[in-house]
Amino acid sequence: MTTKDSAVTRHYFDWAASAPPCALCSQSDIDVNYGNPSSLHSEGRKAKDALEDARARCAKVLNVPPETLFFTSGGTESNIIALFSNLTRKGQGRIIASLAEHASIREGMETLDRMGKPVGSIAVDSSGRVTPELFEKALTKYGDVRFACCMAVNNETGAVTDIASLRDIIRRQKENTASGARENSLPVHLHCDLVQATGKIPLDIANWGIDSASLSAHKIGGLRGIGLLYLRRPYSKGEVFYSGGGQENGVRGGTENIKGALSFASCLEKFADGETVKTEYERAKSRMQKLKQAFSQMERAHILPSLREPETNEAGFSPYILQVAFKNIPGEVMARALDDLGFAVSTGSACSSSSPERPVLAAMGIEENLRIEGIRISQGFTTTEEEIDLLIAAVSEVLKFL
Amino acid sequence: MTTKDSAVTRHYFDWAASAPPCALCSQSDIDVNYGNPSSLHSEGRKAKDALEDARARCAKVLNVPPETLFFTSGGTESNIIALFSNLTRKGQGRIIASLAEHASIREGMETLDRMGKPVGSIAVDSSGRVTPELFEKALTKYGDVRFACCMAVNNETGAVTDIASLRDIIRRQKENTASGARENSLPVHLHCDLVQATGKIPLDIANWGIDSASLSAHKIGGLRGIGLLYLRRPYSKGEVFYSGGGQENGVRGGTENIKGALSFASCLEKFADGETVKTEYERAKSRMQKLKQAFSQMERAHILPSLREPETNEAGFSPYILQVAFKNIPGEVMARALDDLGFAVSTGSACSSSSPERPVLAAMGIEENLRIEGIRISQGFTTTEEEIDLLIAAVSEVLKFL
Repeated sequence: MTTKDSAVTRHYFDWAASAPPCALCSQSDIDVNYGNPSSLHSEGRKAKDALEDARARCAKVLNVPPETLFFTSGGTESNIIALFSNLTRKGQGRIIASLAEHASIREGMETLDRMGKPVGSIAVDSSGRVTPELFEKALTKYGDVRFACCMAVNNETGAVTDIASLRDIIRRQKENTASGARENSLPVHLHCDLVQATGKIPLDIANWGIDSASLSAHKIGGLRGIGLLYLRRPYSKGEVFYSGGGQENGVRGGTENIKGALSFASCLEKFADGETVKTEYERAKSRMQKLKQAFSQMERAHILPSLREPETNEAGFSPYILQVAFKNIPGEVMARALDDLGFAVSTGSACSSSSPERPVLAAMGIEENLRIEGIRISQGFTTTEEEIDLLIAAVSEVLKFL
Repeated sequence: MTTKDSAVTRHYFDWAASAPPCALCSQSDIDVNYGNPSSLHSEGRKAKDALEDARARCAKVLNVPPETLFFTSGGTESNIIALFSNLTRKGQGRIIASLAEHASIREGMETLDRMGKPVGSIAVDSSGRVTPELFEKALTKYGDVRFACCMAVNNETGAVTDIASLRDIIRRQKENTASGARENSLPVHLHCDLVQATGKIPLDIANWGIDSASLSAHKIGGLRGIGLLYLRRPYSKGEVFYSGGGQENGVRGGTENIKGALSFASCLEKFADGETVKTEYERAKSRMQKLKQAFSQMERAHILPSLREPETNEAGFSPYILQVAFKNIPGEVMARALDDLGFAVSTGSACSSSSPERPVLAAMGIEENLRIEGIRISQGFTTTEEEIDLLIAAVSEVLKFL
C-alpha cells in the first residue's frame, strides 16, 4: 500500500503487525446499533440482531456453525481465553505449546507454569513449523497431554503448519489408547492460532479437527479491538474462566462491540472467502517470488530459513511473510534505514518487539548473528508489483552505504 | 435522546446499559493511525504517539499520572484484570467484594472461589451502597482481607458509595496494626468500579486513595470495546495475569485500539471534565426530580429504595439512574409496554438481564415482588425535560391498561 506522508511516499510492508483499515470499516450502517444487545427494548434487539447477523456472516465464510463463534477483543484475548480454560477445567493433564507461538501463548504458558500447572513444549523445525513427527514426539514424551497449542502460520517466517496432520496424530494415539497402549489418557484439545492464516491461506476449520481457534480482525483490514474465538464444543460453565455478564453465551463478558463485529464480518467476506483467498494467494506468491529472486542475487541477503530460497517453491510458506537477514546489518538498523526511505518493515513480530532475543528464530535453530540481522517483510491485499520493485531498489540502496 | 425509527419516535432511557455514540467518535482523524504502536517505523511511531496522546488526555481529565492508566477492552476486562491479579500476586489474604457489584466482579469472585482462593462479601445498605460501617464490619469479620472491590455508583439504583471514606477505614485499621492490634496484616488493595460514575459524579481518583479502578468508554458516548484500568502503582511482572506482547506496560496484551483510545479521550474531555460534570449533574438532577415527583403522585409507583422519594434530596444518588417498581406489573411487562410506545428502559443491569433473580436488589433487602416489578430508567447528556414529560405520560398510559 502506498500513501503520501508529507515529503516521503510511504510503502507499507508490515501487514503482519496490522493491516491498514479497509474502507468497509467506515460504512455508516455499522454506526447505528448503539443499543446494548442484552437489553430487551427495540434498540437492544436491533443491536442483538446486528451482532447475530455479524456472527452468521463470519460463520458462513469460515464454514462453521454460528454457535461455535464467540466475539472477543482480539487474537490475544482469544488465545488467553482458550489457554486459561485449563485453570478451571476439571481433570488433570499437561498443557503444551509449540516454541514458535505468539507472545500471548508464550507468556500465558509462563503464567500457567508459575501457577503450578504442568506445562511442556513442542519443538519446531528449522522453518518454525510443527511437523507431525515433532508433534507425535511431544505427545509421547509427556504422555499426559490434554491441551496443545500450534499456530497455523508462523508470524515471523510465514511457515505453514499442516494442522489436519496434527489431528491425525491425536486420533492415532487415541486408537492406540483404545487398544490398551496408553490407558487413562485424556483426549487432547487442539488449539490453533489462526491470526496470520485468516485470509492468507485456505482454511478448513471444521475438517482440520481443531477444538479451538483464534482469529483477529485488524490483520485483515478490520477494526482494532475485535477478534473471534472458535470453540468446536461450547464450554460448560465450569470451564469458563473469564466471564462477566453472560454475553457471548457466557464465554466472554463485556458489552458486545457491534461495530467491530460487523467490520470483521465484512472483511472476512471480502478477504477470507475461499475463492478470493486462492486468487490473492497466487498474486501474493508471484510478488513474493520476485522479492526472493532479487534477494537471492544480493550477496549479503540471507532468506530465513535458507530452504526458502527461490529455487524451491513456496509450498509450506505463506507468501505474505518473509524473514530475511542482511550480513553485518542489525535488523533494527536495516528497518530504520528503510523507514527513512519510506518503507515500513519490522524486526520480527510487533508483539515481541520488546524482546530482542527473538525466541521463535532461536527455536528454529537460527544462529545468533542471523537472528539479530533478521527483518520481517509482510505484504497484503493492496501491495503492488511496483512496490516490490521499489522495495528491492531501496534495499540495494541501503546495502551500498551500510 | 429522541430518534425517529420508522413509525414510532424513540426516546432512549437506557444510558446505563450503553450510551448513544457521540459525534466525536466518527472524527476522521481517529482513523488514520493504522500502524502497530509496537512497530518501530514511521506508521508505528505515529500510532504510538496517538496512543500516548490519548492516554495523556485521559490522564489530564482524570487528574492522575498518565503512567497509571492502561487501555483495556472495557469495564469488564478492567475489573477482571484487577481481580485476577490476585491469582498470581505473592502472599496470602482474602478477596472481598460488595454484594452490589457488577456481574464481572460477581462472577469473577465465583471463579476465584472455585479456584480455592479465600473470598468474602461486603454487605450493602438498603440503597445498594457500602457504608463505612459495613466496610469496617467486613474487614473486621474476616481479619485477613488483602483486596476489596466496591463500585462507586450502583448500576441498578444509582446509589453513590463514598469511596474516600472506605480508604479512611483502611488507613485506620492499618494504624491499629502499627500499634500492634492486628499484626502481620496485609495492606488492603481497594479496587473501585467507576463505570457508572465516570462523567456522572465528580471523581477524585488520586485523593480517594483507590489502588485500582475500572472505566468504560461506551457508557459516556465512546466506542464499544475500549476501557481503562487505573493502577496507582504499576504491577510487577509476577502480578500480571493476563499478559501478551508487552503492550500497556505489560498489564494488558493485544494490539492497542488507537481509535477506541482516542474516542475515549475525546468523550472524557467533553463529558468528564470537572466543570461539565457539575453543570450536567444539576441538569440531570432537575430532570430526575421532575420524574420522581411524578412517580410519587402515582399510587402504584414505588421508588427503590423508598428513602429516595422526592421529598428527600438526591444526595447519595446519581441523578442519572432511577429504579422504580409498579405494583402488579412485572418489570419486563412494563419495559415491553413502554418499548411499544417508543421508550427504551431496562429491567436492571444489561449485564445481568439473563439472571432474573436481581441479586443486587436482593442484597439491598428488597422484597421479591418489588424486585420482579422493578425497572431501571437511566438518562444521559442529551435527555431533555420534554422527554421526561413524555415518559411520565407514557407510564400513566400504561398504568391505565395494565
